[in-house]
Amino acid sequence: MPVPVELLRQQTAAILTSWGLPPDHVAATTHVLTEADLRGVDSHGVSMLTLYDDYRRTGKMTLRPAVRVVRESPVTALLDGDGGLGHCPGLRAMDLAITKCAATGVGVVAVRNSNHYGAAGVYALRAVARGFIGISTTATWRPAIVPTFGAQAMLGTNPIAFAAPTRRHLPFCLDMATSTVALNKVKLAALVGQPILPGWALDDQGHTVTDPAVAMKHIALTPLGGTPEMSSHKGYGLAAMVEILSTTLAGAAFAPSRAAQHPDAPRYDVGHFFLALDPRAFRDEGDFETDLDAMIDALHATRRADPDDPVLVPGEPEEHCRTARERDGIPLAAELLAKLRGIAQATGAEWLL
Amino acid sequence: MPVPVELLRQQTAAILTSWGLPPDHVAATTHVLTEADLRGVDSHGVSMLTLYDDYRRTGKMTLRPAVRVVRESPVTALLDGDGGLGHCPGLRAMDLAITKCAATGVGVVAVRNSNHYGAAGVYALRAVARGFIGISTTATWRPAIVPTFGAQAMLGTNPIAFAAPTRRHLPFCLDMATSTVALNKVKLAALVGQPILPGWALDDQGHTVTDPAVAMKHIALTPLGGTPEMSSHKGYGLAAMVEILSTTLAGAAFAPSRAAQHPDAPRYDVGHFFLALDPRAFRDEGDFETDLDAMIDALHATRRADPDDPVLVPGEPEEHCRTARERDGIPLAAELLAKLRGIAQATGAEWLL
Repeated sequence: MPVPVELLRQQTAAILTSWGLPPDHVAATTHVLTEADLRGVDSHGVSMLTLYDDYRRTGKMTLRPAVRVVRESPVTALLDGDGGLGHCPGLRAMDLAITKCAATGVGVVAVRNSNHYGAAGVYALRAVARGFIGISTTATWRPAIVPTFGAQAMLGTNPIAFAAPTRRHLPFCLDMATSTVALNKVKLAALVGQPILPGWALDDQGHTVTDPAVAMKHIALTPLGGTPEMSSHKGYGLAAMVEILSTTLAGAAFAPSRAAQHPDAPRYDVGHFFLALDPRAFRDEGDFETDLDAMIDALHATRRADPDDPVLVPGEPEEHCRTARERDGIPLAAELLAKLRGIAQATGAEWLL
Repeated sequence: MPVPVELLRQQTAAILTSWGLPPDHVAATTHVLTEADLRGVDSHGVSMLTLYDDYRRTGKMTLRPAVRVVRESPVTALLDGDGGLGHCPGLRAMDLAITKCAATGVGVVAVRNSNHYGAAGVYALRAVARGFIGISTTATWRPAIVPTFGAQAMLGTNPIAFAAPTRRHLPFCLDMATSTVALNKVKLAALVGQPILPGWALDDQGHTVTDPAVAMKHIALTPLGGTPEMSSHKGYGLAAMVEILSTTLAGAAFAPSRAAQHPDAPRYDVGHFFLALDPRAFRDEGDFETDLDAMIDALHATRRADPDDPVLVPGEPEEHCRTARERDGIPLAAELLAKLRGIAQATGAEWLL
């Protein structure tokens, strides 16, 4: 039975409130998680509550964080997340970038001392809702990507989200991890006992593995490209670029160094990056959207390899999913429902689903 | 016999001057091409003069362009390249982004009505020389990348360059086409008659080809990832992102639409994108460079899959090449030398090599 999104929002908010999170954090985390569920990005929806509950129980997140602006100029800002979940500082940062962009044409905001912030695309699309181009990247709490020629994960799955406004078409929204595949795809293969493709993951010697159980033991994903012959150095370079924008620029912690030097560090100190850019600083009102619509028309009209498989534009499958799920509700696996129920019970949150 | 870089600069300048290019264009194109040769990016060095000579003979570039600023704010600008080569407007755009960045912390400049601008990394590194993060992307005159599920090239090889300053280490510099491999790799395989890897290129039905001669006939490269199973939709999304930043934002021409609607258009109207970002808008002086140095130390120390293959950081091979070539000169193949000699003779340029 699919769950109406409004009910899922109430349930998520009830759980987060029962943890003692302040109302702005409850609202932000609820919004970002359920947006991901609406868009079909189930790996980053309310299923994330299981990870956040781990954080809570192991003291890896501040429950009543004081998000603050550390540094600010008319075009830039740095925020400190005070070790809480990343959604509230993330939305504040993107909104600040948007406000600055409205005044100057560009806004760039970095966040340090944060945590998991959900799906990167939700932040990039926030800029599009104001008519701006939006970019967001984030580092992660745990290394997962192995650099080309390496035998050890050193970089997070480090996603890049880029969204741009259109008029006739759905907004363009690229939201991609810089690994070849998401860890979830490996997990799923392990669950059903299917081999994974060579080039998705490595063992602890840096060799390709096809046994998903071995792959899950090491968490050593390849960078986009998969193998050196297929240009994995490009995916590695992109993951490193995201790490520099998210971690180094914000002054956050580089995960493998933190894990080696402070295995019991109370906070993960994850960093994020946000950029908003106004097309009207470069083009007359509406011309950007008109041209992007025409480009999307051309991409849709691309001759197909298989007549049954149309060429899609990034963001379209997610928007179609949103339309269906706003109407029909969000499907939640029985296993996830049981986990969420346990999480709700542990802190006395009302069970609504 | 390797050619000393200073002599190669003189030869390049002599050829471009004989074409009637103004001194600022001669200097800019000479600089960008020989920088690529120094960095070992031979595909984007003086070998490009053969393509530019085609442009000249077929009237596809303005010989005495008037580059101008079309629109400007304290943080942004749009330049028009007037249909000339891209190096002069490219360097002016990056320098303008740097000047704005020095004043406000960020500078974003787009260029329209331009042409091939050489290696993207040269522009990104220009920001690093001033202590800033630099980003540059460009579209190209000809579609080469096939969208996932397509059977037809729709996007250029659309490179992304990202460079960041360090203190102890060589600057970080990612400079990558968003195709799996460069067209040059396919060309080289065709020259020596070796099959190419499945996933590098497609035929005109969208099927994988391994015969490089067939691949060269269609110019249908895969996006980074190579196949749908290896997440080619991510490389496709990145190529589309670059197209939006370079073409749509600047108001330049989307190559497949231009080629279909105006096959004899006198100009290619290529667009570029430039961004400079000051780490000191976010961090105390020197902290960014210190942290990036530490990250590079950690990446170098990654456990290796093969003890003989160290983990490198983007930009290092190119900087090592520069050191060697500044000392020993730049090797030029006999075939390229013969072509350059013919190009010089055609317009009466002195032959110096």
